[in-house]
Parts: sequence; structure tokens; C-alpha cells
Amino acid sequence: MLEKFIEKAEVLIESLPYIKTFNKKTFVIKYGGSAMTDDAMKKAVIQDIILLKYIGINPVIIHGGGPMITDYLNKMDVKSTFVNGLRVTDKETMKVVQMVLIGIINQEIVSLLNLFGGKGVGLSGKDASLIVASKKIPDVKFNSEGKKVEPVDFGYVGEIQKINTEIINNLCNEGYIPVIAPIGVGLEGESYNINADEVAGEIAQAIKAEKLIMLSDVDGIYEIPGNKESKINSLTYDKAMHMIQNNQINGGMIPKVKACLTATSGGVKRTHIIDGNERHSLLLEIFTDQGIGTMVIKE
Amino acid sequence: MLEKFIEKAEVLIESLPYIKTFNKKTFVIKYGGSAMTDDAMKKAVIQDIILLKYIGINPVIIHGGGPMITDYLNKMDVKSTFVNGLRVTDKETMKVVQMVLIGIINQEIVSLLNLFGGKGVGLSGKDASLIVASKKIPDVKFNSEGKKVEPVDFGYVGEIQKINTEIINNLCNEGYIPVIAPIGVGLEGESYNINADEVAGEIAQAIKAEKLIMLSDVDGIYEIPGNKESKINSLTYDKAMHMIQNNQINGGMIPKVKACLTATSGGVKRTHIIDGNERHSLLLEIFTDQGIGTMVIKE
Amino acid sequence: MLEKFIEKAEVLIESLPYIKTFNKKTFVIKYGGSAMTDDAMKKAVIQDIILLKYIGINPVIIHGGGPMITDYLNKMDVKSTFVNGLRVTDKETMKVVQMVLIGIINQEIVSLLNLFGGKGVGLSGKDASLIVASKKIPDVKFNSEGKKVEPVDFGYVGEIQKINTEIINNLCNEGYIPVIAPIGVGLEGESYNINADEVAGEIAQAIKAEKLIMLSDVDGIYEIPGNKESKINSLTYDKAMHMIQNNQINGGMIPKVKACLTATSGGVKRTHIIDGNERHSLLLEIFTDQGIGTMVIKE
Amino acid sequence: MLEKFIEKAEVLIESLPYIKTFNKKTFVIKYGGSAMTDDAMKKAVIQDIILLKYIGINPVIIHGGGPMITDYLNKMDVKSTFVNGLRVTDKETMKVVQMVLIGIINQEIVSLLNLFGGKGVGLSGKDASLIVASKKIPDVKFNSEGKKVEPVDFGYVGEIQKINTEIINNLCNEGYIPVIAPIGVGLEGESYNINADEVAGEIAQAIKAEKLIMLSDVDGIYEIPGNKESKINSLTYDKAMHMIQNNQINGGMIPKVKACLTATSGGVKRTHIIDGNERHSLLLEIFTDQGIGTMVIKE
Amino acid sequence: MLEKFIEKAEVLIESLPYIKTFNKKTFVIKYGGSAMTDDAMKKAVIQDIILLKYIGINPVIIHGGGPMITDYLNKMDVKSTFVNGLRVTDKETMKVVQMVLIGIINQEIVSLLNLFGGKGVGLSGKDASLIVASKKIPDVKFNSEGKKVEPVDFGYVGEIQKINTEIINNLCNEGYIPVIAPIGVGLEGESYNINADEVAGEIAQAIKAEKLIMLSDVDGIYEIPGNKESKINSLTYDKAMHMIQNNQINGGMIPKVKACLTATSGGVKRTHIIDGNERHSLLLEIFTDQGIGTMVIKE
Amino acid sequence: MLEKFIEKAEVLIESLPYIKTFNKKTFVIKYGGSAMTDDAMKKAVIQDIILLKYIGINPVIIHGGGPMITDYLNKMDVKSTFVNGLRVTDKETMKVVQMVLIGIINQEIVSLLNLFGGKGVGLSGKDASLIVASKKIPDVKFNSEGKKVEPVDFGYVGEIQKINTEIINNLCNEGYIPVIAPIGVGLEGESYNINADEVAGEIAQAIKAEKLIMLSDVDGIYEIPGNKESKINSLTYDKAMHMIQNNQINGGMIPKVKACLTATSGGVKRTHIIDGNERHSLLLEIFTDQGIGTMVIKE
Repeated sequence: MLEKFIEKAEVLIESLPYIKTFNKKTFVIKYGGSAMTDDAMKKAVIQDIILLKYIGINPVIIHGGGPMITDYLNKMDVKSTFVNGLRVTDKETMKVVQMVLIGIINQEIVSLLNLFGGKGVGLSGKDASLIVASKKIPDVKFNSEGKKVEPVDFGYVGEIQKINTEIINNLCNEGYIPVIAPIGVGLEGESYNINADEVAGEIAQAIKAEKLIMLSDVDGIYEIPGNKESKINSLTYDKAMHMIQNNQINGGMIPKVKACLTATSGGVKRTHIIDGNERHSLLLEIFTDQGIGTMVIKE
Repeated sequence: MLEKFIEKAEVLIESLPYIKTFNKKTFVIKYGGSAMTDDAMKKAVIQDIILLKYIGINPVIIHGGGPMITDYLNKMDVKSTFVNGLRVTDKETMKVVQMVLIGIINQEIVSLLNLFGGKGVGLSGKDASLIVASKKIPDVKFNSEGKKVEPVDFGYVGEIQKINTEIINNLCNEGYIPVIAPIGVGLEGESYNINADEVAGEIAQAIKAEKLIMLSDVDGIYEIPGNKESKINSLTYDKAMHMIQNNQINGGMIPKVKACLTATSGGVKRTHIIDGNERHSLLLEIFTDQGIGTMVIKE
Repeated sequence: MLEKFIEKAEVLIESLPYIKTFNKKTFVIKYGGSAMTDDAMKKAVIQDIILLKYIGINPVIIHGGGPMITDYLNKMDVKSTFVNGLRVTDKETMKVVQMVLIGIINQEIVSLLNLFGGKGVGLSGKDASLIVASKKIPDVKFNSEGKKVEPVDFGYVGEIQKINTEIINNLCNEGYIPVIAPIGVGLEGESYNINADEVAGEIAQAIKAEKLIMLSDVDGIYEIPGNKESKINSLTYDKAMHMIQNNQINGGMIPKVKACLTATSGGVKRTHIIDGNERHSLLLEIFTDQGIGTMVIKE
Repeated sequence: MLEKFIEKAEVLIESLPYIKTFNKKTFVIKYGGSAMTDDAMKKAVIQDIILLKYIGINPVIIHGGGPMITDYLNKMDVKSTFVNGLRVTDKETMKVVQMVLIGIINQEIVSLLNLFGGKGVGLSGKDASLIVASKKIPDVKFNSEGKKVEPVDFGYVGEIQKINTEIINNLCNEGYIPVIAPIGVGLEGESYNINADEVAGEIAQAIKAEKLIMLSDVDGIYEIPGNKESKINSLTYDKAMHMIQNNQINGGMIPKVKACLTATSGGVKRTHIIDGNERHSLLLEIFTDQGIGTMVIKE
Repeated sequence: MLEKFIEKAEVLIESLPYIKTFNKKTFVIKYGGSAMTDDAMKKAVIQDIILLKYIGINPVIIHGGGPMITDYLNKMDVKSTFVNGLRVTDKETMKVVQMVLIGIINQEIVSLLNLFGGKGVGLSGKDASLIVASKKIPDVKFNSEGKKVEPVDFGYVGEIQKINTEIINNLCNEGYIPVIAPIGVGLEGESYNINADEVAGEIAQAIKAEKLIMLSDVDGIYEIPGNKESKINSLTYDKAMHMIQNNQINGGMIPKVKACLTATSGGVKRTHIIDGNERHSLLLEIFTDQGIGTMVIKE
Repeated sequence: MLEKFIEKAEVLIESLPYIKTFNKKTFVIKYGGSAMTDDAMKKAVIQDIILLKYIGINPVIIHGGGPMITDYLNKMDVKSTFVNGLRVTDKETMKVVQMVLIGIINQEIVSLLNLFGGKGVGLSGKDASLIVASKKIPDVKFNSEGKKVEPVDFGYVGEIQKINTEIINNLCNEGYIPVIAPIGVGLEGESYNINADEVAGEIAQAIKAEKLIMLSDVDGIYEIPGNKESKINSLTYDKAMHMIQNNQINGGMIPKVKACLTATSGGVKRTHIIDGNERHSLLLEIFTDQGIGTMVIKE
């Protein structure tokens, strides 16, 4: 029995070099996917984050909220359509998005953090004008006859214009863990629905984070889609862009990879896409040399 | 025309003694009633609050949200019953309460503050465990035969156990205006629906506010209910308790008066119940000697 | 009656955008002319200044003292001559200048500030070596025959060599309002009499003030001297120099305009020459878009 | 020659224990008498004070100004009468007092401090309301027939009501040496002429000085008036009071001794009356165990 | 392999509650015995201490040095005698003690701390007069005939008079780990040899440590000396005193237990005697509820 | 007698200009030679240093320890050889070096500082990794036949790689006087013996000292070796290099001059080589214009 404790102590000691390296650095964590719905996984992620805080790292959490939004839209009988993977967000939809993201999901994460001993504070991009956004203007497209195709109006889907980092820094310095819902605020005070991956990438860049970690439902990026054997450990900008064009990276993985590229191009040293369903994947990625997911770096 | 400006300047100068008196003091403002639904009134209240901030006063806003909650409960087909004026709040209802208060109403106030030049930050009682609460246990009652009446289970209606003021003070000191939704957090992390007046009274007491100002839909308390001529300028604890027992103070005015009594008994110098529908009533109460509503004081 | 109060509150709200713009900025105010002799005007100016302080602006006051100096010179039977508008200042005269400026006028302003709720502290340029000066050397001139004219010896009339801003910044940061008498100190500790307008211009430049406001006895600069209809709202450097050469700007207005040019060339955004006899002209200029006097800007 | 330097170094080393003892303490120095009129003495006193500042002591200077006031009153033909050693100070006289004390004497001390490398800042009791005073009400007296004698109206002769120490502490902490003219300010902003010894005693008490040092024209207090052999080294409260009643202490020495008693009764450890005409008497008193004047202590 | 990492992460998470509890607390660690001579043990202890520092605990190390002192005394042919377990320490012996403790052992610990990523700074009790001591005066004893026995003169064996904690606090706050050699300084600057356990107890008390941990060569205190089965988990003051009198606690364990009693009586919450030879015993004691040695508490 | 005191006060006043000049500057003092062995001289040097601290200068002391090391090596029968004036330092020798420098000499200086009222703290280059060093690699040499001569292995004689100034600055700012033993630490934690003059030069450079003062046993550098009349007051880089090549500067003076050149080339304004046996030579050099030794400057 004593031996078991000694083994445990050894584990703590093994983590020491990593603790030293990341002391007083900031990690932006995109929290999403199944890791946000399964109760055991939620608890594991939250504890990982609090551990990071106590050993001297400043975690900043960005969360999404996809499926629950759909549930509530259905409950309230609000129809919403998707075009090119983006939800067309009219005023009613936007309200539901806001209610679910800020009123339910954000508060649940905050509550868990506090329950397990952290000091979480929920923010939306509207608080202290943290995320200034504008209406997303789709790229102009032309049809086969060379005529401009009338672009889709996505409504309150927003594009990030500016991150006002002051409130994040203030809260981190006072010992809090900021939990951020991906809602932006426009110049008239209107709300915008923004992709959470995008928000994570831009915030990581703006606050000059040491790391950006995207919790996803797959364990990284595969050279050959679907072939787990072909998982890539480390991906450069050029390679990533190439794989997107080749459709090797596709679907929901595209914004994740793009967020990583945004962050690295703005000075974030390392970005990681990892499997949130792997217990303590957050610690594994941080506390081992090889990591477990795919690391996206500048070059 | 020039003369008109001079007159205006005179007004600014007239306000100087009040500005001096309240410099660096904290005002807790319970924002509710029609002042929260009418667009022009909203704008007026928000500007008043920002003006307070700029002239050196720290405003802290508590808001309620009654009617909008009912709307959304209806939209989502969630039934809720009222017993003795309290909404019986089951889990589903609680979620809707939270979505509306935190996701919609709180964010709208924050957004307006920022739009007009303030730096608003939304908080619920769950953020940084600001409002620790427990299930409200109704007073034991006995029926006419002297038998204990089985008490109503109000579900997630909460009673305040503790206010953790740190986050409010931190935000005020950094120049933000905290906007607080009346949701409490229980020991297991569960949410509680708490009367916003109660929250305002307890927070005013906990942060040792200079003033507590309750925006209501009437212009004060009347000696003779309904008789505007009988408005009371200044009300002591004893008198207030007497009037409640006599039913002179009743309905929604009871929690307002009780919140004032909580605050004054905890050291808040002056508490005010004023008419939020009166344009700039917030400034009138603050910048004139006589004020406009009813002042509740300790003795 | 209530309506009148509401109107007043509206005035406060109207001032909000200006309050926001000038928050934490420094205004250098040259206080002089009749605004310094008329009791009602004095009170109005002082209250305006205190209001500025309370709403977050740092006022720094420079005062002159012309007529009272002459009175005391007469009382003490000290003769003084004027050459080209400058008082030839011998040792005796200098003492009287100092006694009147520092002992009487400066202290009166300080006293009024404190009486109306500010925290005024009087300074001369000798305190903490605030204004380092040297003897004014008149420009060499030639007579009609091309011979050098022996220059006038103005005695203790000084030219500013350096502003040591530390004491001003320290006092402003601690909440005081510095009131500065235009006396300079030479390398041997001797006193110099310096034009107050000049001092105001140099101090505004040295402390990187947001605004320099010259209170004068006219309401601005006229295109056609004496013609009030021709008042200029905004004057550029080139235009101002041109008007001085053309004698359109002359007499006591020249040092005022020159002080403005000193300030603007050193980075002060806006400088204003306004009528100190207009009640609350200080607030009018600050709190309205159009202002009331003549604004002198860089270009 | 080298030996001479070594001797000098020995002197510095001898002073070390005193430097250590008084490190970061505050000394209130009443500067007056001939030490203020003789040029060589002035320079010696000023250098002593700057030395104190550089070795870690905070000097605070209070000055008087007697004879020069009389000179200027004569120059300006203002008559003034003395009753019981107090100048009856009407409005005109008060102005001259203020001009001389603040405009001339205070500034001269400030200028000398700066010339020799200190950072002097002049203050009157009006600056930041440092010395709040009220009209001196003479004790009621009765004539030989037992009738109340109509008390003399001393005009603007003031009694200290309150010392607002904030400005002194702020200046000392920022490295300045405050130089204070003994003018008080009344509730209406009016000026009061106050005995400089009294001011020194009250300020020493209010700022909890370590020492109060009164520079006078005699080298201490004599047991037998006029008999230098009978100089008292150390005087207790009771003894001092007794000697005043016995007329052993009289004339201008009474306010000096009383100021010492005020200071000691308020917690100042040691107060000293020394001869300002003795070169470097300030250092002698401070840097030698026996001192040179008379020390007044509590008991 | 991945599973192994997950297990490791679980261990980190298990330690979270302890990390939270001890955040920003100070631990005094008496480092001695075999844990100081075996290379692998040294490394383990040092890593444990650095880990404590990184997770937010302030470790303060006191070390002894017994056997190495004897070695060097022999090398230098300095004879030393022991009386009642105390080394009679003459001047020559004291020098060797100092050389070994400060010059060798202290520096070795500092060097190891820095090698493994900490910031160690060595101190003796002479640095900043940290440990003020005086000559140990043995208790007066009487022989069987009731005559006073001439007490042994232990030479430079010292008794602690005062701990000047300032330097410890300063170093801890700046991120350093102080390593303290048990040498005291007398009023004449002379050195004293002090028992390291005693130093640890007094320092723990003086800096109000959260814990005092004595690393020894046994795994705690036994009810029945030598019987490992009878190890006591928790020992109160009374029980400890009783066991000392009964000789159940004896030899080198007495100063350890007494140091614990000194610390607990001065407010240290928990003191521990643990086996330094058990790998990571420092972490085991801290990170498990039951601990591994004997805990000495107040009552 | 009084006159004698006045003379003493005059001396204090004479030192004022120097005190002002060096206020808040740092002086690195290499303490060595006979000034470290003679009791009276030691006391004189220590008092000088404490006086510097109290008048606002930050002294940093580096000491050597030559002869005492030899004594102890003899006592312990450790043989050591010298090659080119450098002690070949094997492991055993290194231990003795460390014991003597850190355990005895450093602590004695610290103890004297504290005894005379300073707050000394001893450091070696191992504390907080202050002096990072590596094994000294002798220059490659060739014999008369042009063959590479196998270089001498000096063992643990070190070369400075880096000075980590943080601990020096922290201690100075907190009011301590750091006393540094010239031991360096290698990358594996091993100790290195470094020339104390070299350490002084590098530390002076690294902390951007105002002055470096080398206490030696001669009173400066002579143009003609041995001819006191030919003492050089001020020596430039080029001249110094020339004199070393010419053997005019030789023996133990070479590292002293080189240390001065290291310091001046790194921005130290003035470096001085003075006679530590001259009483208070430290003050003489500092407080007189001409100084007493030889000043080495950049050009």
C-alpha cells in the first residue's frame, strides 16, 4: 500500500519539468464535443483545468454548444436552416442561441469549476465588449454562367473584428478562470453568433497565449481520412492548407485547424487538437513529451 | 442660445455638492419594473447609471425579470404554478428562469451600458460563487385544527446564505459596472431562483453600499394605499414593520421594503424606493435634497 | 416642479459624452482678466474648475495679477516703467510682484478652491524649481541709421528655460488642484517675473495637457478687430502668425495667441481663448461641440 | 593633508549611530530669529536641513517672520498696534502679513533649499487647508472691581483648530521638504495670523514627529534668567509650567516652551530649544549625545 | 501505454484537494539523517521540495550536519568531547562546525535545489541576524549530597533568543527557497552552534508555518520502543511529555518531539516526524490523508 | 569643545555634494588584502560601508580569501600546486576553498556588518545561481619548436559565464548589504573557484554599478614600479593595456586592473584601485574630488 503511494509521488515528480516550463503561462482551451455532454468526462476536464490553475497556469475556456441549441430551438418551435454548415440566425434564433450558450452551458461550466474548487467567472463577448463583431459577409460567388450569385444572408452570424482582452487579463490576474461564450457584440449592441473555434483562435492570438488546445471528438488529424494509423503528430501551416484544399481535412475539423493557424500566425507557440473523450487528455497533452493529438505549428 | 447653455452649466454646478458627497461611494440599484421594458426609459436609466460611474460613484446593478420568464415558459410549454406569490420552480422551470435572466435580460443591460459608454460585465450568483443559496424552507404553518400543514415545496426557490463580495469589488475597482442576475448557487452547484429585491438588499449590506435604490412602478409608499397625496417621504424600521402588519404595505412592495430594511440594518445609510418610470428618477433622487420617492432608514 | 428637475437631469445626461471624452485628461487653465476680480465671476470659475476635477479631469491653474501689482507698487511708492508693454522689473519691483502674486492672488484662488470643496495647493515657479528661467534678452534692434540700438534692460523679467513637471504630476495624482504663480527661478535662486500666458503655454506643453484654455476679457479673436460679427471659431498656426504680422491680433492678445501656438506645437490637441466674463464659459467651451471662443489649433 | 581627510572621515563615522537612530523619522524645525536674517547663518541652516534629508530624515520647516512684517507695514503706512505681545491684525495688516510670510520669506527659504540641492516646496496653512483656524478669543478678564473687562479684538489673529497632515506626508514621501508659513484658514476661507511657534508645536504633534527643534536666539533656558551658567539641559513639563508661572521663562520664550509642551504631550519624543546663531547648531543637537540647547520632555 | 498515462493523470488529479488546502502556506522542513547522505534520497527530497514550491507552497529548509562535522574535526585534528549528547564546542570546533554547515552542507542543498529547477538561497543564522542566540546555560544540578554540581561549559553551544523572520519572508515572497544552517549569532557577533531541530521548531513558530516536518531516520514514534507495530499516528502534548518522562521517547528523538511541541504551542497547526529514507515521504505525508509518520499536535 | 563640534558639523556639510551625487547609486567593493586581516582596519572598512548604505548608496561587497585558504589546506594536509599564479584546484582543495570562503570569511564580514548596524546577507555564486561558471580552459600555447604544449588542467578553477543579478537587486532594494564569496556554480551544480577581482569586475558590469572600488595593499598604480612619486591618478584603457604588456603592471595587480577594464567597458563610470590599509580610504576616495588611489576609466 505504501508502495502504491510512492509510485503516485513519482508521478507528481515526473510532472515537475512540465510544471516549471508552463509556470505563469496562459492556455486557451476550446471546450466542446462529447467532452461537454458526458458527465464523467465533464468532471475530468474540469478537474484538469483546475489543476492547471493551481500549478501556476492561467486557463481561459471557450465553449461551444451546438446540439443543445437545436434542442431548444425545437422546444420553442423556432425553425432554423443551415447553409454551407452555417446556421442562418434570425433574431429569434439568435435569442435562443444566447439563452442556451450564456444562460445554460456557460453557467454549467462555471458551476462545475466552482464546485471542484476553482473560481470560474462566465463571460460572453458582450461583457466589457470582449468580442466586437460584425455581420458575416459571405464571399462573392459566381455561377457557371459567370453571374454573381446572390449571397446567402446568414443573419446574426458574426465575424470577429476585435478582441478587448482587458477583462480576461484582469480576471486571470485576480485568480479567476474566465469561461467565454462565443457571442459577439456589434456596434449597435446587437448580438452575433460566432463559431467557437474561431473565437478560441482569435482570443489565443489576442492574449498571446502559450498554447491553444482544441478538445474535439477525434484524436487528431489523419493523413488518410478515417485511418487511425495515419494520425499526424505535427502539422505545419503549409501542410495544413494543402490538406484542406485536398479535402483531407474537412467538415468540422476545418474551423478547428483554421483556429490553430490563426493562433500560431499570431505568435501562439503551440496549438493542439486532441480527443476530449480520452480521460485527462488535457493533462496528457500537457504533461508528456509526445502528447496525444495533432499539434499544429507555424512551420 | 448662449443663455440656454449658461443655464445648463448652472445645472451642472448645482449638482456639485452631491457629486462631492457621493465621491467613491457605492450605490446598489435594483433595476426592474416597467423601467426595464420601455425602450426610452431603459436608455434613460442606463445613461443615469453611466453618469454616476463617470462622476466617481460605483453603481452595482441587480435586475429581475418577471414577465419575460412567463413568456418563455409559455413558449416552451413549461407549466408553472404560483403559491403565495412565489413561483414553484421545478428543474425545467429553473432552466428557463436562468436562460431568460442570464442569457437575455442581463446581457441586454450589459449591452446597453457598453453602447452608451460604460464597461458593463454581467454576473449571475453562480459566477465566482457570488450568491451562495439554499432551498427555501417555508415557515411551518398550522391549520385551524392545530395540525401542521404540509409545507409547499417551492423547488428551486432559494434563500441567500452568503454573498461572496470579492468579484464585485474587483470589478468596481477596475472600472467595470457589475450587472447581477438573481440566481443563487447551492452547495452541489445547483441553481436557485431568488427574489431580485432580496438579492439587492443582501448585496447592499454585504458590500457596505452607501445607498440602495429600488426602481419600482410606483413613486413610493403611501400612508393610505392608493392615495398619492399620502406619500411618505421617510420611513423608519418600526413604522415599516407596522405598515406591513397592517397591510398598508402589501404585494410586491413587501420584498422591496424588506430589502431596504435588510440593507439599513446592515449599515447602508439610506435606501430609497422610487418610480423607475419617472425619467431620470435615479438622478433626481440622488441630486436633489428632497428626492422623489420614499426613503427607508433605520430610525 | 418635478418637471424642472427632470430637465436638469437631462442636462447632466447631455454632458455625458464630453465627460467620457475628457476622462483622466489634464486641462491647463490660464485664469486672468476681469474673471479674477469680479466676485460672482470668481465663484463661477472656481466652481467650474472643481466640477472638472470631480468628473475626472485634472485642472492645472496658472494665474496672472496685473492691476493688483500696480496698486501695491503705488502703495509702497515703488516706481516702475513699462517699455514695449513689459514692466521693467528691478529688485524692489520684483519683491512686490512676488508678494502680490504668491502672497495674495495665488492664496486667494487656493482658498476659494478649498472653500468650494476642492483641494487647491499654491505653487510658484520656485517651488521644487518648477519654472527654471533666465533673464530675458531683448532682440537686438537697429535704428534707422542701421546702428544697433542699446537694448532695454528689463531687469528681473524672465524667459522660461525649463519646466520641471514632477511636482504638478505628483499633486494632480494625489487629488490636488495646483495653482501656479508665474514666477520663475534662476540658476542663482533669483526670482523672475514671467508673463502668465507664456507660463500657461509652456506648462501645457510640458505636461502634455489635453487642452489649454485662456480666460480673457474678450470672447475670442476677430477677423476685423472690434467687429464681433467677425469672430473666428478656429484658427490655424499660419493664419495666426499672419494676423499678428498684419496687426489684426495685437496688444495683450499676442501673448495669449503665442501661448496657444507654443502649446499646440508641443502636442496639446486644442487650445482655446474664451471670455472669462461669460458665466461658466469654462464649462460651455468644454461641454458643447461648438464652444464659445476661438480655438487655436496646429493646422 | 591625507591625514586631514582621514580625520574628516572619522567624523562621518562618528555620526553613524545617530544616522541609524533617526533613519526615516520626521523632524519639525521651527526656523526663526537671527538665523533667518544673517546670510551665512541661513546658508548653514539650509545645508544642515538638506543633509538631514539625504541621510534619511524627513525635515519639515515652519518659519516665522516678525521684523520684515513690521518693515513692510511701515512701507505701506499700515498702522498696527500690539496688545499683550500680540499684533492686532486688521484686514489690511493681515494682507501684508500674508504677502511677507508667503510671498517673500517662505519663497526665500524654498529657493535656498533648491539652490543647495534639496527639493523645497512652500506651503501656507491655506494650501490643502493644512492649518484650519478660528479667531482667537482672549480669555475673559476681570478688573479690580470684579467687572468683566471688554476683551481686546485681535482681528485676524487665529487659533489652530485642526492640522490636515495629508499634504505634508505626501510631499515628504515624494522626496520634497515642506516649508510652511504660519497662516491659518478659517471656515469662510479667511486668513489668520498664527504664532509660528504654536504652528510648529501643533504640526509636530499632528504628524507624530520624532523631534521638534526650535531655533531661537538664545542657547536654551536658564534657571536664573540671564545667567548662562545656569542653562538647563533637560526640562520636564511640571518644571516648565512652574518656571513660566515664576516668570523664569518669559517673553518670546513662553510660546517656544509651550509649543514644546504641546508636542511632547502629543507623543513627540524629544523637543529642543537651541541657538540658531551657533553654526550648525541643528547638526550639533542631532549628532551629539549631550546636545547644545535645552531639551523639553514630557517627564 | 496511453492507459498508463491516464493513470498518471489520475494521480495528479487525486492530489488536487491537498494542493488547494495548502495553497500559499509555509512548510518548515527539517532536513537531516540519512536522507541527507544517500544520493538517490537527496535527489528525491529535493524534487519533492521543488514540487511543493511550484504548486504554491513556500518551503523553508533547516538542515543539520552531524557526521560530516566529526569527519572534518578529525581531519583537522580538533578534539571535541560530548557531554549529555551535546558537543562541547570551543572556538576551533565552532569554526569547523561553521565551515562544514555553511560552507559545505548548506551549499550542497542550495546547489541541488538550483540544479533541479528551484531557486535556493543559503542562509545561516548570522545572515541578517536571522537567529539571535546566547550561550547555553545548563540547568543547575545537585549531586546526591545536595551540593550544586559545577555545570559543564559547553562553549559555543547556543540557545535561541530571537528569530528575525524578515529575510525568510522576503526571500519566500520573491520566489526563493531559503536553506538555513543552524548557526546563531550572539550580541558580540560571535557564532553559536545550535541544535537543528530546535532551530526548525523556533523558526516554524516565528514565521507561523502551516506545518513543521521533521525528516528522521525512523518512521515515527512507537508506543513500545522498537516495536514498529506500535507506531503512534497522532500524539498530543501531554502524551508526548509523558512519554519523554517515561523514556519511551529518548535520544535524538527528544529534540525532534520538543521542536514539534515548540511549534504547535506557537500556533503551527500540524507537525510531523517522518522517515526521510522512505522515497517521497515528504509528498506522502502531505498528499495523503493518513500520512506516514507520527503527527504531533497541540491537543 | 563646542567649536570642535562645529568643525565636525562642517565636515558633514562638506560631504553633502558627494552624498547628493551618489544618491541611490550602487557601488561594488572588492574587499581584500590586509584590510581584511587587521582588526582595526576591518572595523574601519565595515563602518565606511554601513555609512554608505545609510546615506543612500547601495554597497555590494565581493571578498577574496587567499592566505586563510592556504592555512586550512595545510591544517587538513591537502597539497595544492600553483601554476602561473593559479591554484590547481582538485575536488578536495575546492571543498576547503568553499569552507573557508563561505563558512568563515564571508560570515565574518556579514557578522561585522550586522554588529555595526547594517543588514548583511552572505551569498556565494551558488545561491540563486548568482555566478554561473565553467571550467577555465587555458589558452593554447606552443613551445619553441612550434608544438602545442599540453595545457595545464587547473581543476575547479572557473571562468564566469553569466551573472544572475536578480538576487543582488532584490536584497539591495530590501535594505540588505550583499556579501559575495567568489565561488561559481557549473551546469552540473559543481563548484568553481574564481578570482575575486574577476567576480567584482563582472558583477559591477552586470548590475550596472556606478563605481567599482578595489581595496588593495598598495595605494594605486605607479608609472615606475616601486616609485611612489610616480603614482598615476587616472588611467585609460589603452594606457592600462600598454602598461600590462610592458610589465609596468604585473603580478596581483593585473587581475585588479583587468577587473576595472571589464567594468568600465560594460558601462561602469569610474573604477578605483585604492589602498585598503589607509584608514577610511573608502570614504576618502568617495568624498573628495581628487581621491587617493588610481582611477581606471574607459578613455
